[in-house]
Amino acid sequence: MNNETLATVYHGIIIHSLDIGNLEFIRNGLLAVHPDGHIAFLERDVGQLVKEHLFIIFSYSQVVTLSEHQFLIPGFIDTHAHAPQYVYAGTGLDLPLLNWLSTYTFPRESAFSSPTYALDVYKRVISRFLRNGTTTCAWFATIHLEATKLLVDVIRANGQRAFVGKVNMDTCGPDYYVEKIDDSVESTRDFIQYVLDSEPDTSKSSNSSNTAKPTRLVTPIITPRFAVSCTAPLLDSLSTLASEHDLPIQSHLSENPSECELVQSLFPHCRDYTSVYDHYKLLTPRTIMAHGIHLSSEEIAILRDRGTGISHCPNSNFALQSGVCDVRRLLNAGVKVGLGTDVAGGYAPSILDAVRQAMTASKACKIQYLARAEERVERDPDYNVLTIPEVFYLATMGGAKLLNLEDVVGNFVPGKEFDALLVDVGVADGPIDVFDHDTTESLFEKFLYLGDERSLRAVWVKGRRVAGSSNSDEF
Amino acid sequence: MNNETLATVYHGIIIHSLDIGNLEFIRNGLLAVHPDGHIAFLERDVGQLVKEHLFIIFSYSQVVTLSEHQFLIPGFIDTHAHAPQYVYAGTGLDLPLLNWLSTYTFPRESAFSSPTYALDVYKRVISRFLRNGTTTCAWFATIHLEATKLLVDVIRANGQRAFVGKVNMDTCGPDYYVEKIDDSVESTRDFIQYVLDSEPDTSKSSNSSNTAKPTRLVTPIITPRFAVSCTAPLLDSLSTLASEHDLPIQSHLSENPSECELVQSLFPHCRDYTSVYDHYKLLTPRTIMAHGIHLSSEEIAILRDRGTGISHCPNSNFALQSGVCDVRRLLNAGVKVGLGTDVAGGYAPSILDAVRQAMTASKACKIQYLARAEERVERDPDYNVLTIPEVFYLATMGGAKLLNLEDVVGNFVPGKEFDALLVDVGVADGPIDVFDHDTTESLFEKFLYLGDERSLRAVWVKGRRVAGSSNSDEF
Ligand SMILES: [Zn+2]
Ligand SMILES: [Zn+2]
Repeated sequence: MNNETLATVYHGIIIHSLDIGNLEFIRNGLLAVHPDGHIAFLERDVGQLVKEHLFIIFSYSQVVTLSEHQFLIPGFIDTHAHAPQYVYAGTGLDLPLLNWLSTYTFPRESAFSSPTYALDVYKRVISRFLRNGTTTCAWFATIHLEATKLLVDVIRANGQRAFVGKVNMDTCGPDYYVEKIDDSVESTRDFIQYVLDSEPDTSKSSNSSNTAKPTRLVTPIITPRFAVSCTAPLLDSLSTLASEHDLPIQSHLSENPSECELVQSLFPHCRDYTSVYDHYKLLTPRTIMAHGIHLSSEEIAILRDRGTGISHCPNSNFALQSGVCDVRRLLNAGVKVGLGTDVAGGYAPSILDAVRQAMTASKACKIQYLARAEERVERDPDYNVLTIPEVFYLATMGGAKLLNLEDVVGNFVPGKEFDALLVDVGVADGPIDVFDHDTTESLFEKFLYLGDERSLRAVWVKGRRVAGSSNSDEF
Repeated sequence: MNNETLATVYHGIIIHSLDIGNLEFIRNGLLAVHPDGHIAFLERDVGQLVKEHLFIIFSYSQVVTLSEHQFLIPGFIDTHAHAPQYVYAGTGLDLPLLNWLSTYTFPRESAFSSPTYALDVYKRVISRFLRNGTTTCAWFATIHLEATKLLVDVIRANGQRAFVGKVNMDTCGPDYYVEKIDDSVESTRDFIQYVLDSEPDTSKSSNSSNTAKPTRLVTPIITPRFAVSCTAPLLDSLSTLASEHDLPIQSHLSENPSECELVQSLFPHCRDYTSVYDHYKLLTPRTIMAHGIHLSSEEIAILRDRGTGISHCPNSNFALQSGVCDVRRLLNAGVKVGLGTDVAGGYAPSILDAVRQAMTASKACKIQYLARAEERVERDPDYNVLTIPEVFYLATMGGAKLLNLEDVVGNFVPGKEFDALLVDVGVADGPIDVFDHDTTESLFEKFLYLGDERSLRAVWVKGRRVAGSSNSDEF
């Protein structure tokens, strides 16, 4: 074993979700990361270390001891964001969805026909999301093949784990931003090949002692923009492409009341919005649908039966006046849920913001319930708002499950890959003040409510340091 | 004129609200600040400078030229915050108001019986709020006289403009955190004298060429916690104290449905919650009532008739599941409105957060209206969400009007005092990415939605630099 293959062992407070109801605070933990990026072991109490671990720790590894205001958490998973839209994030939030798309989105996205422009923007987008601790992201790009390939290149160069989709839209777009169906399908096929063929060789890590097979960091994802912007033949072709290559699918579902009406008028043979995607075989266990605000109980049952999950994007849902998604209702029905920023419908490139706004959205559901209890007889009269442990789960393990990455990331179970954040609530000039009475639990809560990218001393994907406010390996 | 009396002239983009519907972008402005902290002049176009201005600028002043990504805005005004509660901001947001008070608030506030503890905490609170650009704040302290005096000392040492209230509560509190009525009144009287007698002498600035009379930076404010925690005789005594000394008043009104019911049961002779305060003569043109969520039209009419305004605290209203305040309804009725953080019912010590959450709350009103239009016949069927210019007004001029400081601060009208923020959206390692297509308007919006304390290069109160992320006078 030479220097290059030394394991790194982190010693200190470790916080992760074992399940939605089970947030674990490990106060004196040891987490070892194998040089190939896998988690070698996680010990909950240093006193219980077994002999072979001590051997590894003291002979063959470097030990990083966290300070009392630092802790490790799993990397954040953003299950829905639009990379090209980041250029106008924080602006143009005065219109509802359909007007917003035509006024702000389509003009900005059309500029990505220029690869030079796309490269410049995408470098800054990926850098910003990594700084905010988003170690995995499900990206919508634009309709442009070359720009979307460049997004993949930038993501790989920066080390983010990602699903990347070339957007498909062959109808209802403006003249300057719409595809012909054949071009749409052909360039999608081209894009899939580009991503699958160009994955860097990870086999040199195969001397790993654990049994996990190498996983790809970037996965192509089939991305019909939404039912409004795709003809029936395009939806057909895209579901065929997905099943041919065994690929995930992402789109938008039931975001805005006018959108729902429009979909109903465009697909009169389908019972509801969800049934449109179902009819074209786009609802699979690997499908991520953003929003799902105005779903009927029948639609929720379809999603559950197909194993399709929802990306909850509360910032966007408020900002575009779309509605308030009742996440508790989805969870109770057994639908998978993760969090999404939906930049730039949502203004913040940060899952910490999504955590806060998911709490707000859940409390807005409760408030609405209190205000009109008698009208919501079909729902639980003792409506329970989401808890901090539940929302943290959605931001990490929930996202991993939604993306079918639950065996790869989402928490620190040994054998998974080390996608992690080193949080420091005591960082100098940071956003959080620590007081004597604070506990590990209160500091964790303060981080979720008040932390920002300054609080993240280091961000790792598969063991590789990819961002962080610390300029060195001293944290 | 010697060096000490040099005026400072800022040259660049200046943004402020002339009125709620009138946000002014001055692209090539000159703003001169007299050494006594007053705004000497504001020129909207450098080409139109008159001779005497040029004379001052080039002979007797230092000129600060802002870069293209910088602009000046008025300081933020937080019209409702609890200084002692900052220690647990970002935690304990799982309970509604009355349970939250007994579980988290009263135990933490009672610790301020220790002056040593209070001094340490208050230094950090004031520093944090100034870093976030809050140049004026209406503070609730605790029931403790000594600690509240120390809060005044800290505020003066740090240079914030503030209203400071010793909290009054002589009933319905826990044994360990409640006052006897005589002690409550006597210590309030003592506190008022302390603040009025100890105001530093500002007469040395009286060589000012403008006519504004010297204003005090710290004002005592009568602070009955809320109707629940005050007996009728205490409410009586406090309104007498306020009128004797011509002082402002602050309290809480109609925050939570259970609170409203409790007040009704405690004061059965009053028609509603608002009438309780009205009965005891606590609703004056200088009264600030926090929240006002569940008000009837009759209550709103009382507030308008008394000239009493509302501090809108949207973060807190969501976080404590209190409800969603319909600000548009208050504005339409002619009630004054400002923004408040309500730390720690609200978790964020930042009016930028209040701006964002005020937009969210307004959109939540619109969403609710869309979902149940037929039930809200008493409201405008074309419900208009608040706009960015309107909410920025609430954060600055609206707050100034609510605090009766509209002739002193709130915008850059000459003769007012220079409470200002130097915003830099291009600051290195900051939260905002600037793209080629960005305009002054889009950068201003990005600042409101994505900026944070890093974006504030300098914070001034009455011309004195009190905070800012720049370490020097080079911005
Ligand atoms: Zn989206
Ligand atoms: Zn309050």
